[in-house]
Amino acid sequence: MHTIEELIQLALKEDIGPGDITTDNLVAPGTRGQGTITAKQDLVIAGLQVAEKVFKTLEPEIGFEPLYADGDRIPAGSTVVRIDGTLGALLRGERTALNFLQRLSGIATQAHAFVGEVAGTSVKLVDTRKTTPGWRVLEKYAVRMGGAHNHRMGLYDGVLIKDNHIAVSGGIANAVKKVRQQISHLVKVEVEAATFEEVNEALAAGADVIMLDNMDLNQIRKAVGMIDKKALVEVSGNVTRERLKELAQTGVDLISIGALTHSAVAVDLSMRINPN
Amino acid sequence: MHTIEELIQLALKEDIGPGDITTDNLVAPGTRGQGTITAKQDLVIAGLQVAEKVFKTLEPEIGFEPLYADGDRIPAGSTVVRIDGTLGALLRGERTALNFLQRLSGIATQAHAFVGEVAGTSVKLVDTRKTTPGWRVLEKYAVRMGGAHNHRMGLYDGVLIKDNHIAVSGGIANAVKKVRQQISHLVKVEVEAATFEEVNEALAAGADVIMLDNMDLNQIRKAVGMIDKKALVEVSGNVTRERLKELAQTGVDLISIGALTHSAVAVDLSMRINPN
Amino acid sequence: MHTIEELIQLALKEDIGPGDITTDNLVAPGTRGQGTITAKQDLVIAGLQVAEKVFKTLEPEIGFEPLYADGDRIPAGSTVVRIDGTLGALLRGERTALNFLQRLSGIATQAHAFVGEVAGTSVKLVDTRKTTPGWRVLEKYAVRMGGAHNHRMGLYDGVLIKDNHIAVSGGIANAVKKVRQQISHLVKVEVEAATFEEVNEALAAGADVIMLDNMDLNQIRKAVGMIDKKALVEVSGNVTRERLKELAQTGVDLISIGALTHSAVAVDLSMRINPN
Amino acid sequence: MHTIEELIQLALKEDIGPGDITTDNLVAPGTRGQGTITAKQDLVIAGLQVAEKVFKTLEPEIGFEPLYADGDRIPAGSTVVRIDGTLGALLRGERTALNFLQRLSGIATQAHAFVGEVAGTSVKLVDTRKTTPGWRVLEKYAVRMGGAHNHRMGLYDGVLIKDNHIAVSGGIANAVKKVRQQISHLVKVEVEAATFEEVNEALAAGADVIMLDNMDLNQIRKAVGMIDKKALVEVSGNVTRERLKELAQTGVDLISIGALTHSAVAVDLSMRINPN
Amino acid sequence: MHTIEELIQLALKEDIGPGDITTDNLVAPGTRGQGTITAKQDLVIAGLQVAEKVFKTLEPEIGFEPLYADGDRIPAGSTVVRIDGTLGALLRGERTALNFLQRLSGIATQAHAFVGEVAGTSVKLVDTRKTTPGWRVLEKYAVRMGGAHNHRMGLYDGVLIKDNHIAVSGGIANAVKKVRQQISHLVKVEVEAATFEEVNEALAAGADVIMLDNMDLNQIRKAVGMIDKKALVEVSGNVTRERLKELAQTGVDLISIGALTHSAVAVDLSMRINPN
Amino acid sequence: MHTIEELIQLALKEDIGPGDITTDNLVAPGTRGQGTITAKQDLVIAGLQVAEKVFKTLEPEIGFEPLYADGDRIPAGSTVVRIDGTLGALLRGERTALNFLQRLSGIATQAHAFVGEVAGTSVKLVDTRKTTPGWRVLEKYAVRMGGAHNHRMGLYDGVLIKDNHIAVSGGIANAVKKVRQQISHLVKVEVEAATFEEVNEALAAGADVIMLDNMDLNQIRKAVGMIDKKALVEVSGNVTRERLKELAQTGVDLISIGALTHSAVAVDLSMRINPN
Repeated sequence: MHTIEELIQLALKEDIGPGDITTDNLVAPGTRGQGTITAKQDLVIAGLQVAEKVFKTLEPEIGFEPLYADGDRIPAGSTVVRIDGTLGALLRGERTALNFLQRLSGIATQAHAFVGEVAGTSVKLVDTRKTTPGWRVLEKYAVRMGGAHNHRMGLYDGVLIKDNHIAVSGGIANAVKKVRQQISHLVKVEVEAATFEEVNEALAAGADVIMLDNMDLNQIRKAVGMIDKKALVEVSGNVTRERLKELAQTGVDLISIGALTHSAVAVDLSMRINPN
Repeated sequence: MHTIEELIQLALKEDIGPGDITTDNLVAPGTRGQGTITAKQDLVIAGLQVAEKVFKTLEPEIGFEPLYADGDRIPAGSTVVRIDGTLGALLRGERTALNFLQRLSGIATQAHAFVGEVAGTSVKLVDTRKTTPGWRVLEKYAVRMGGAHNHRMGLYDGVLIKDNHIAVSGGIANAVKKVRQQISHLVKVEVEAATFEEVNEALAAGADVIMLDNMDLNQIRKAVGMIDKKALVEVSGNVTRERLKELAQTGVDLISIGALTHSAVAVDLSMRINPN
Repeated sequence: MHTIEELIQLALKEDIGPGDITTDNLVAPGTRGQGTITAKQDLVIAGLQVAEKVFKTLEPEIGFEPLYADGDRIPAGSTVVRIDGTLGALLRGERTALNFLQRLSGIATQAHAFVGEVAGTSVKLVDTRKTTPGWRVLEKYAVRMGGAHNHRMGLYDGVLIKDNHIAVSGGIANAVKKVRQQISHLVKVEVEAATFEEVNEALAAGADVIMLDNMDLNQIRKAVGMIDKKALVEVSGNVTRERLKELAQTGVDLISIGALTHSAVAVDLSMRINPN
Repeated sequence: MHTIEELIQLALKEDIGPGDITTDNLVAPGTRGQGTITAKQDLVIAGLQVAEKVFKTLEPEIGFEPLYADGDRIPAGSTVVRIDGTLGALLRGERTALNFLQRLSGIATQAHAFVGEVAGTSVKLVDTRKTTPGWRVLEKYAVRMGGAHNHRMGLYDGVLIKDNHIAVSGGIANAVKKVRQQISHLVKVEVEAATFEEVNEALAAGADVIMLDNMDLNQIRKAVGMIDKKALVEVSGNVTRERLKELAQTGVDLISIGALTHSAVAVDLSMRINPN
Repeated sequence: MHTIEELIQLALKEDIGPGDITTDNLVAPGTRGQGTITAKQDLVIAGLQVAEKVFKTLEPEIGFEPLYADGDRIPAGSTVVRIDGTLGALLRGERTALNFLQRLSGIATQAHAFVGEVAGTSVKLVDTRKTTPGWRVLEKYAVRMGGAHNHRMGLYDGVLIKDNHIAVSGGIANAVKKVRQQISHLVKVEVEAATFEEVNEALAAGADVIMLDNMDLNQIRKAVGMIDKKALVEVSGNVTRERLKELAQTGVDLISIGALTHSAVAVDLSMRINPN
Repeated sequence: MHTIEELIQLALKEDIGPGDITTDNLVAPGTRGQGTITAKQDLVIAGLQVAEKVFKTLEPEIGFEPLYADGDRIPAGSTVVRIDGTLGALLRGERTALNFLQRLSGIATQAHAFVGEVAGTSVKLVDTRKTTPGWRVLEKYAVRMGGAHNHRMGLYDGVLIKDNHIAVSGGIANAVKKVRQQISHLVKVEVEAATFEEVNEALAAGADVIMLDNMDLNQIRKAVGMIDKKALVEVSGNVTRERLKELAQTGVDLISIGALTHSAVAVDLSMRINPN
């Protein structure tokens, strides 16, 4: 919540700065207007509450009426939101609100497409920490709106033991034991494994989740067999949309995909404003 | 400057939160290590100082040695930066630093490609306000590193009179006169024109720049002739890479492109960390 | 907008700190009262919205009814504002609101007098960056309310090339060319010139504005002739009220005056409070 | 301390914003230079540490060598400070540092002159809360540097019971008793008195200080006699420099003067910068 | 005021962080509920407005109806507050509101008990600066709600000259004189004295308050006699509840007690929530 | 990290405010001194890095030499830290540093004693969210330094389904399923159970942890048998030191104790300062 408000403040500050010198000098303060946000392509919408907060930061009493809810699939040409306020607030908020909405809906729309690739399997597609700095909570929310799932939010709410951690802890068994002793009993421990030997060590150490790092399909299938439901299995490493189906069929529980956030592009949404 | 530091703070806060529970519990505070950031594809680099600041925020005395400068073209496989510090700072800063670097270099790399399309013409490709909220200054910087140019930074450092402003000001002439009376003499006035009549009115009103909104190639050519160097001419409106060349050949001075920022994706950079 | 709110927060914090120990201990929370702000001298008012925001920060529902608008000339003895709220908010906000209003109206009142000196000429009096730190946007606003004009807001929204910039850029021509290549096409370039030779170089380099630095009246007249409307002409350098008329008659476009802000003093406004 | 740093941040932000577009584009990052701040008139200096902090905020390792200390009287033409750093930091910090120094030294210089008017008496000249919002601590410091004294810093560190407080507390005696019961034993109680009757009530109530509000010289003399050292006596109300001497001779302990801060103007200080 | 809001922000941020993952995922946004805060032991209540602000920060329109006022003695089993809002806000605010209320009421309850020990004497029990960092204003408020009194709020609103200050100032007389010359006339000067000689020096120097440091009962009685009402007398130094009565009977004016804040524990308050 | 620095800023601001009027006026800026922090009772130390950061915030180059590490048991009379810096920084930082150290060590010392009560069993004592607002991360750290363990850090890093969540979700099975679908696979789900029926439902729903709420010893023993290692078992509800041993012997995995934080009191540490 807090970071979202900080980000909105940052966004309005960087756009408006000491003042909108066009609107401030041409639009009389009381003038009112209407705005309509329209989808110019098929999309899954996400970020409506952020867009609303952008306008309400500028004008607390502005009318903001969404015709859809986050997560809805919207066909091209649909009206998404109606806004009613002073012309000044509409003009000053337009670009920032759209910038939020276009990026978040872009992520949701892409996630929805990715999830479609694995329909019929029980695999979960999960995001990574490869998010736009400052946008972590928002982008992970958009991923969920598109039907995919979240990995840990950050370094604080899940343990992921990687090669470097193992190297300085004297092996997987020690690392798992040491960290388990210090963390809350509500947090699980995931271990990265690049070889079958490491998979076995992670299993023996009681890892809750094992991440198979850059294995090929055969290796993954074999590892899934070795683990045999005693831990959740995640695959990771430059996963593309094309590889999703075959990865899903290996029987892994989770596929983590950086592209869900780092390679999403804006969808096309536009706002039409009319003075009263 | 200030917003960049605020964004870095936000980014580290959202990733680390109350603590990196893996590293905090496994890596002894004094342990040192080295990191190497490598380009996994051809790219134009941008954001090295931001990446440096990320690490220095975590550890003021960390060694950060870039082997390239922002704006450089780097072939796949090259080492881009060497980092030397505590293993803890390397592990905590890795993801955030890469997230910045991958997005900014993605923008620079794409801008470079776009600029290549209009090589040999005098047209300037310029960005828009369609930037990632919170990232305005950084993304506009990355656009320059890729060889394209900047439009105004925000609503405060340039006048852009659009249809709504004209509607409530009693015409283009009035709008230009009214705003010019209030702004600094160092700021120019740009007017959006959708018809030849509006082009003529903008010219007569003494606009410094005229933006041709959604005109076709023939209309643009005709407008360029009418304006005849008495104002700068900008074209705008869902410009794609494919259309750049023909637009450049119409004789306009500036082509503004939202995709320079809103449709750039991350380039592939990775970081390898080794404990001492 | 943001900096104004930050400044109001700072102002209330420095005055009230952990609590108004007189009012907190003597005035029962619900007690209501009325306040009246009166002009004790002829003045041009500026800052009414800031004063309102001071009181509303302390008590969002307070009644604040201004009888004049910013920029109005007000004769001594006039009631300027009526305020209706809790006695506590009136007493806690009084000093801070008056401190803002007295300084901003002081600037507007002085600017109005300065502008009167050049009545009948087409010259614009403009302010400088010699403003009270933290008050830039407010003081430049007060200058406009007094009928004078603004120079650039800061270092970010206008180019002003001075001797040091020229020295390290290899001459005026290079400096103008180099900076023009990097900045937005909506920003103008001004060059400082202390000699006729520099005036000529600036003209040749295509400067949009030329600032004549510390020239005498004859030199200014000659420079204005040389420039011959090909650029705007600004004169600068310890301009006093006495010199305004003769400077205006040289034909320059702009006279910049640090005293508009750095030597304005508070006008006399007082607030009378009555408990119900 | 904290508010000063906040104010410096605000000042640099409002001046530099997203970047100094002249210097950023013309001065190569490593270029070094020297600056010299010179007094262009006789003055009492104040604010050297603030000026230093401005430059150090921009460049922590900058060399800042003051040749005088705050409170020193400096003759016109003297070099006040030598600065050695990157040309960029010198150019970006110059205006903000001077703006602080010119206003604070203006206050100190005027205070020094006011104090000179009452030389040979034991009266203390004290400031008021009529300070520039955001500048309270700094301006009160400058007052001391000029040889005058401070009244309370704000509403939190001294009790001043005025007419409104008395009206809602059932008289002076009740007000003093009620407030004394709640406050720290280290804080004194001052009561405003407009009539001899109120002076007597304040005395009887055990006020530590009695402020005579808008009395003429004869009334003041009589009140001083009535109070007879049983409380400190302060006079207040539109005190001008001309009235100081005769007020001092009435035997009051303190004269409070809003003009010490609200009517001080900038002294003339300039900075010369030379690239290496 | 400001610090309290900062502390509430900090508290909600540390508890809720990026989101309440239980409630966010199980409670539909519009669901409403009621909450009741109940005293599980006899107590003196303090902090109701803070608890209210916690809930209003989460939901501005929440209904918060206190049945008692701060400072009231409340028997075990009583309902203290009724709250009516969305179930989400009740669940998210519950713990933070109770944490504030339990600690502040704990302080008020203990203070009330301490004050009872000296009933019938004129001594004032005062707190110290041994408060929970970040909680100064709140804890000192709770002390007053329990019937005890406040020493200075911090280092800025009262002078307390200790051994180190004396050592570097050349004795008590010099120290008092030097500091008195610089501070506001509304601030008193207290001097710490460990010996009778120091008591005499402090008296001679005109100290307003003398703090007897770690003296035994006989020494205190003798010092009180020496001072003979010419200054207020404070005793200090590991004062426990058991010693209060005999200390009070020595005739000192003030007993300062760190335990009022540093050794208070939470009282038992609980909140019952019911969905509609 | 960030919240700790914010808390230190808050703490120094509330104590020093606009300035330490005693030290500022009596101690010459360059004067140096030494400080020694001593344990006046047996204790377990915690918070040394916070104390260091307090002093370094005031004086970055101050010497701070701890003779023990957090978590160490220290006998009464031992020197804990030696500090070497300016006398001003020592005097200004003393109280705030001690206030942090005394409270955190108080928590660690009490936790250590509680842990001693269950020595020889495998039960873990865990804290709760009943921490001092603003101090969550610090107090949970102190709990670990005393040898006890942490429950979730806040509402964001662990799921705890309570009666209200169950009521609005249509039973435990639904609630667990619904929340599990939305959260990261690294976060566990805990369910509160007040009856054996609820224990069975929680087990069937696949809860990772079951919290037995206010059950007596027999009930707890029976529930432990029913759960039979298929989930972790936590007991909760007004646990006192006296009950720890018998609770531990029931075979539960975790005992959560609000008193670990809400009823800890300051240990006795003092600081002696000597000017050079």
